[in-house]
Formats: sequence, structure tokens, C-alpha cells
Amino acid sequence: MANPPHGWEKKRRGSAFGAMPEAERADENLIEGKNAVAEALRSGREIDKILFSAASLKTVGHIVAEARRLGITAQECDRRKLDKLSATGAHQGVIAMCAAADYKTLDDVLALAESRGEPPLIVLCDCITDPHNLGAIIRTAEVSGAHGVMIPKRRSAGLNAACAKAAAGALEHVPVVKCQSTLAAVQELKERGVFVFAADMGGRSMYGTDMTGACALVIGSEGEGISAGVRKEADFTVSIPQKGKIPSLNASNAAAVLLYEIYRQRNV
Amino acid sequence: MANPPHGWEKKRRGSAFGAMPEAERADENLIEGKNAVAEALRSGREIDKILFSAASLKTVGHIVAEARRLGITAQECDRRKLDKLSATGAHQGVIAMCAAADYKTLDDVLALAESRGEPPLIVLCDCITDPHNLGAIIRTAEVSGAHGVMIPKRRSAGLNAACAKAAAGALEHVPVVKCQSTLAAVQELKERGVFVFAADMGGRSMYGTDMTGACALVIGSEGEGISAGVRKEADFTVSIPQKGKIPSLNASNAAAVLLYEIYRQRNV
Repeated sequence: MANPPHGWEKKRRGSAFGAMPEAERADENLIEGKNAVAEALRSGREIDKILFSAASLKTVGHIVAEARRLGITAQECDRRKLDKLSATGAHQGVIAMCAAADYKTLDDVLALAESRGEPPLIVLCDCITDPHNLGAIIRTAEVSGAHGVMIPKRRSAGLNAACAKAAAGALEHVPVVKCQSTLAAVQELKERGVFVFAADMGGRSMYGTDMTGACALVIGSEGEGISAGVRKEADFTVSIPQKGKIPSLNASNAAAVLLYEIYRQRNV
Repeated sequence: MANPPHGWEKKRRGSAFGAMPEAERADENLIEGKNAVAEALRSGREIDKILFSAASLKTVGHIVAEARRLGITAQECDRRKLDKLSATGAHQGVIAMCAAADYKTLDDVLALAESRGEPPLIVLCDCITDPHNLGAIIRTAEVSGAHGVMIPKRRSAGLNAACAKAAAGALEHVPVVKCQSTLAAVQELKERGVFVFAADMGGRSMYGTDMTGACALVIGSEGEGISAGVRKEADFTVSIPQKGKIPSLNASNAAAVLLYEIYRQRNV
């Protein structure tokens, strides 16, 4: 499983708010306590993840089971972590972390492109686990005119409070789609007539690659890069040329550079 | 390697430091994380000792082996000790204890450009206070072929551990100059024949701006932008065109987009 590529960013963003820990700001995205979490699941609310304490399994086990049945990650953690995370101090051994924005569908994304009279431009994030990185990518996607961002259900940051902050308002304007997996998304995009470009080393230079048609750009996590299966399934591998001695850019900077090369090809 | 911490786990670690600002904790003599440590070894940097966690041997074993091959002490220690030592909270199981990167001079930067037979390309960071942002900018500067990065003495992050980690090894390869102030740096650059481009809104599109000559790019802090005095003193204001509804990119993404437009103008 991927390492957390940018763990350090978390603290930093928190400190932009002075001494207030991030957890205290995130409470609008937390649902605490067994009845509240069970109700949230019943109502179909967007939930990124459920955290529960093993010591409370007897009373919250059915909630965990229901979450997993719905395909929501449910993760056991230390009770003290729940205590620290909790805004109410009454979590009863279970906390649901909700999405800061609603997820949309690929249809929404393609409809947005069509409404603008533009070939679709989609960023597919392959297991970006750092919410700040994901937020920065969504922000740059919005600013550069992309029509949507796709993230896999598992092994990806979700639209939590940290991601929303890094996105600086972009979540309100660019649809984000949760897909079964990056590979499934690549296959679906191809079926829908979108060419898939995996951003990775060893491909064709972005300057020599025509990305003016319907295009999805796959951005890998910094630690792992793009998985072999995804790279193989993608139509093309596109690379950012490099002059330096270190091997690569961070994920959000790589996405920014590629998105603006696409901008240039399409608009300049 | 331990499972990737999720957002809240990171916060935990961060808040263990309470309200103490990261800058005060960051130990200038630590390099953290597998990419940064591996690159420090590759570059031949003086390293006193490497500390690693046995639990991370699978991912850092090759770094330990390489350190020992070079005659550097590599010492196994408890992960909690690494956690305590870590300034970034994201050491990935390995920390190198060594001298902080030396600051260089503008002469070093200009000499590097000359040795490569290229017009100087310099990034001047105007009060980027986030060490991770600064590190990401230095990383992209290195990868895209810039010859140096300048930071003001005050109101700027320095080359601490968090910055070194975000720079992912770039500090070993790109000279960083500490200047009296951003304004003084602009004046000195102009005296040395370098054109100064302030990256800001309301300027000329980067696509219509020739940046192939001797060029310094001023990147402002996200919150404040570029100060009025610096903008006035700069030769040009250059802008990234935007299609979205939110106003701007984050500082490191903006630097990346501009650096690669310069790369394109110079190399493609």
C-alpha cells in the first residue's frame, strides 16, 4: 500500500489557522455516535470513511457491517484517537467522516464539457492519498478549465475538510466523481470516447503529444506512481520533460504543468 | 512499512506539538523520508548517521545498505524515537542526521547558468512562509532546469527539514540564496542584467511573454501575493491565464506552470 506521500502538509495547513488543530475545524464533516452514524448511512449521505473503536464493536458492529455492505471503508482505530477527533466528546465509539461536497457522475462531467462546447478534459487521480494534494489538483483543474476530477473509492483521499481547504473553493465548481477503481475508470472513459493519457516517465513528451481531443489525464501518487495495469490500459503515456537530477515533480505540480500544456494546446 | 496514515492520524502527530510553530521545531540537521535521504546519499552529502525503523526495512533497507556501503553509521531505532525526532511527522521510517544545506550566493547561481551555457533562470520567492511550499518550488525549479532559488532573510521559510523533505533531494542540486529582502534581490538582479518577471494577476499572459533571456521569476506568497513595491520594481508582470471561477493557483503550482512555460520557450 502506498506511503503517505505528503504527510507533512497536514500539519502545515493546520497551522495556517494559528494554533487551532485541524480536527476542531473539521467538525462540520464529522457525524458522531451510533444513532447519528446509523441514520447518516440510512439517509444515503456521502460518507468517506467510518472510524470505530474495537472496544465498542458490541454496540457499533451492525453499523460497521452496514457501512461495509454499502462499500464504505470502515476502519478500526484506537479509542483515544476517536476522543481526540471528536468535537462533541460523545462519539460512542463510532465517527463518520463525511464528504465536504457531493460526488457527481461521469455523465455530469461530460455534460459540463458539452455545455461549454469543449472536448472533455478530466483528471483521474490514481490513489492520491494526501487530501491537500488532491485539493490542490482539484483547484488547478478548476482554474485551468478541466470539466471533472475522478478518484477511486479505495486508497484515495476523499473530499474531506482538508481537501476542501486546499481546493480553495474549487469543489463548488468542478464535479468530482468517485469510481470503483482507477482501472475501471480508464475502461469506462475509453468506452465513452475519451482518450486516456497516463502521466508517467518514459512516455512521449507532453510537448509532442496532441491533447486537444477528449482527454483524461491520469496522475499517480508520488510514492507509487501509476499502477502497471492502469498504465497498460491507458491509450498513451505522456511525460513532462526534465532537465534536473532528481526524478520527478510532486503530484499536484505535475498535474498543474500537464493541465496548462493542455490549456495551451487548446486555447493559445 | 506501516499503513498509510489517514488524515486524522497525521493531525494527531501534528497536534502532539501543540501550538509550537513548525519552524521552531524543525531541526536543520535532519533529512527525513526515503526519497530525500536516498538523494542525500547519492549526492555525496556529509551525513553523520542514519536512523531507521526496523518496521520500515522493506522500504528503506536499500538506503540502509547504501549508507553502510559508504561507511556511514546506520542505526536501528524505535519508531517512536523517529516520531519524536521528526520535524515533519512523515519520516517514512528513515532520518538522516547531517549538516543543513548551505546557502549559496547569486554568483554561484550565475556561474551555474554560465557553466551550462544557458541564460540564467532564477526563482525569487517573495515571503513563502510554508516550508513545504518552498520545498515544492525548489523541487520543481530543479527538475525544470532553473539555476537557483532566492529567498529573503525575513518572513520566509528556510531550508529546514520540512522544506528538505518537500524538495525531495533538490536542495542537493539547486543553489539557494538568502537575500536581504525581495526588493533588494530584484534590484540586484536587474543590476546583474537579469530581467525580473513578477508572477501576478493583471499582467501579460505568460504565453505572450518572451522569457527566453536572463530571467528571474518572482512568486508571491499565497495569502499576500507580491508586495506592491516588488511588483513596481520588477521589469514585467506575467500572468497565468485562467478559465475557472476561483481566482488563482497555489504558489507552488503557479511556479510549476510558469517554470514549464519558460522550459517550453527555451527548449521546445
